[in-house]
Amino acid sequence: MDTIILRGDICFTPDKDHLETHPDSYLVFENGICRGIFSKLPEKYACIHVKDYKGHLIIPGMVDLHIHAPQFAFRGMGMDYELLTWLKNRTFPEEAKYADTEYAALAYGMFADQMKKSATTHAVIFGTIHREATLMLMDMMENTGLTSYVGKVNMDRDAPVELLESGAREGAADTISFINESLRRGYKKTKPILTPRFIPCCTDELLRELSKVRIQYDLPVQSHLSENPGEVELVKKLMPQAKFYADAYDRFGLFGKQAKTVMAHCVYSTGEEIERIKENGVWIAHCPSSNVNLSSGIAPVRKYIENGIRMGLGSDVAGGQTESIFRAITDTIGVSKLYWRYIDADAKPITFSESFYLATKGGGSFFGKVGSFEEGYEMSVVVLDDSVIPHPQQLSLEERVERSVYLGVDVRGIRAKLCI
Amino acid sequence: MDTIILRGDICFTPDKDHLETHPDSYLVFENGICRGIFSKLPEKYACIHVKDYKGHLIIPGMVDLHIHAPQFAFRGMGMDYELLTWLKNRTFPEEAKYADTEYAALAYGMFADQMKKSATTHAVIFGTIHREATLMLMDMMENTGLTSYVGKVNMDRDAPVELLESGAREGAADTISFINESLRRGYKKTKPILTPRFIPCCTDELLRELSKVRIQYDLPVQSHLSENPGEVELVKKLMPQAKFYADAYDRFGLFGKQAKTVMAHCVYSTGEEIERIKENGVWIAHCPSSNVNLSSGIAPVRKYIENGIRMGLGSDVAGGQTESIFRAITDTIGVSKLYWRYIDADAKPITFSESFYLATKGGGSFFGKVGSFEEGYEMSVVVLDDSVIPHPQQLSLEERVERSVYLGVDVRGIRAKLCI
Repeated sequence: MDTIILRGDICFTPDKDHLETHPDSYLVFENGICRGIFSKLPEKYACIHVKDYKGHLIIPGMVDLHIHAPQFAFRGMGMDYELLTWLKNRTFPEEAKYADTEYAALAYGMFADQMKKSATTHAVIFGTIHREATLMLMDMMENTGLTSYVGKVNMDRDAPVELLESGAREGAADTISFINESLRRGYKKTKPILTPRFIPCCTDELLRELSKVRIQYDLPVQSHLSENPGEVELVKKLMPQAKFYADAYDRFGLFGKQAKTVMAHCVYSTGEEIERIKENGVWIAHCPSSNVNLSSGIAPVRKYIENGIRMGLGSDVAGGQTESIFRAITDTIGVSKLYWRYIDADAKPITFSESFYLATKGGGSFFGKVGSFEEGYEMSVVVLDDSVIPHPQQLSLEERVERSVYLGVDVRGIRAKLCI
Repeated sequence: MDTIILRGDICFTPDKDHLETHPDSYLVFENGICRGIFSKLPEKYACIHVKDYKGHLIIPGMVDLHIHAPQFAFRGMGMDYELLTWLKNRTFPEEAKYADTEYAALAYGMFADQMKKSATTHAVIFGTIHREATLMLMDMMENTGLTSYVGKVNMDRDAPVELLESGAREGAADTISFINESLRRGYKKTKPILTPRFIPCCTDELLRELSKVRIQYDLPVQSHLSENPGEVELVKKLMPQAKFYADAYDRFGLFGKQAKTVMAHCVYSTGEEIERIKENGVWIAHCPSSNVNLSSGIAPVRKYIENGIRMGLGSDVAGGQTESIFRAITDTIGVSKLYWRYIDADAKPITFSESFYLATKGGGSFFGKVGSFEEGYEMSVVVLDDSVIPHPQQLSLEERVERSVYLGVDVRGIRAKLCI
């Protein structure tokens, strides 16, 4: 039996409405599974070495449901563009570089290094269309200690030719090679995920082929949905037979139900689409930083919460300028306040505990029992030394956590990260 | 003649519409005044030692037109409140502590230390109502090397009794003592500024008394204006004779013209008020982070720019969670995109160069010829080592500056700060 015991100031959100706090307590994991929090250590653990983080914060690892590894290199640049222009001027030229495995090694090395340093323990990641580079990314992610899904991107229209599959069948075949090779490499923490970029870049034929691949390998799916008005209009034109944007994926079996699916954004999802998201059990990756930077808008997160929709947060680098999920937590709160102020006075702003919940247990559910310190949850822990930012007064544990997230203590205060 | 020469990658915004860049060039100051930028150093400077920052970015220091020093201690906490509740529950209880000079020494020490480390070279600062603590803050600011205006706050209603002047005349008398003592201390870079908190906390009588003090000492003025709908309504009730919120200050000679004045926020300023701001030459301190955190809204910055209104940025700690003006630059851009998307499709989003301009030359104009590297401007320089965040590709100088601001290189990449 492998038992790990941590001592410190413990905080997590078993439900969305409050932070549960345990000052100076012990958090116990047996074989990577949480066995409880104790203010005094039970006798049976007396002989176990305690990892002593007294005075430090112990919180669940952050979950990033949506991040583009190849965009990490140009985060924080070209931010004066809107989505479709930004894709054309910034994203596609950069992603084309990943045909060169030497460049990919350099750039993905920096990405993986930063993910390792970050407070993120679980991530759902876009690669590029390139099989070799994406496998290299998986090798690197496996070494970071994070748990991740990584997808070779599929696209066969509406992008520079060097970023397109040579055909729908060829794209599917290449994806199968990618999946087989990724399985052959026997990763413990890194799994492939089916990744049609988004409807504007995928023909019906490609989606049909990918649907077969999905069934064959029982893969999860990630893509983008209803991010930007221009994109939503484009999808209507490209697939007039779809009742709404989500239906365009669902027609091909790439939208929830058997296919565990996460869709980024959902800024412009309404009535029927929201219903479909719920019915099909799709996760939403809410990416507020990106939705602001690319002038997309504000997703109706309160409505999604009230509808009981599965949801977590995404950094969406490089639409978002940082991989920090702490930043996604505070941006979720910030934009929800503007949504309340300008768009829907009935949509109460998202609270700190709600947003923290989304970043941990909310997104964590995509991975299983992840993102909480309740009994039975998988070990996924970040230890923060929040004293790196001094303060003159006594603070409660709740205040220390809120402050650490708002002031970005993840940048220089991470003392340990532990995962299964 | 005291000549200072810096070598590096120079970037600034002489006008709002573009970043002017000078890769690997020399920036020359004589007696603290800019004498030009040279790609090759002129003969006459041949004997002068060059401060060599080759490969580093050289930009103007950031100007913070609105920050509350006593709120620094609780930044990033209690952010689920809206303005008026937040004042009552968070701000006033903390500000009351500054009656205790020992606490003030500790807390202001941390504030001054961080301001010194930051990219900010010029700041307009609120203290509290307490004379002694505010003088202590001025002592500390003088030692940071920043240029600042610091105000003892005036308030005589609608706050806990320990934060109120004992009367309007007593408040004015105490303010005179504060001014006299601050002048007696002979600071070189730290000046007093008249600081009526805002209309809800100031009776007409107090404003009348302060108006006399202002004239007597020819002081500049700082306050808050049209931040939040609840506050705007309150002002209408409290001073029904004022035609609009700004008029409430102007009736007492505390709104521009002879009184050099900066007003924070102006989220809800409309028609006549905007006219008055312009006519009276008042500076707006745009504080986007705070306006989001406190659910205030989004100021019509594009309209202010088109009207040629004087404007700079404010961190508004602790409405804003950070003193970083880099963050204020990117938040200015971010909220302007949402303003364009949801409120006024004619109000083009603020560009990076426009926002950088506001943070430097825009706000700098409150201090004189500050915030640019044009000839005749005062020395105010920040040197950034942007290599602290690695990247795999070649970047232009413009890209490096945008990236440094978006990724917050001010947190750990500042290599030097030089001011007059």
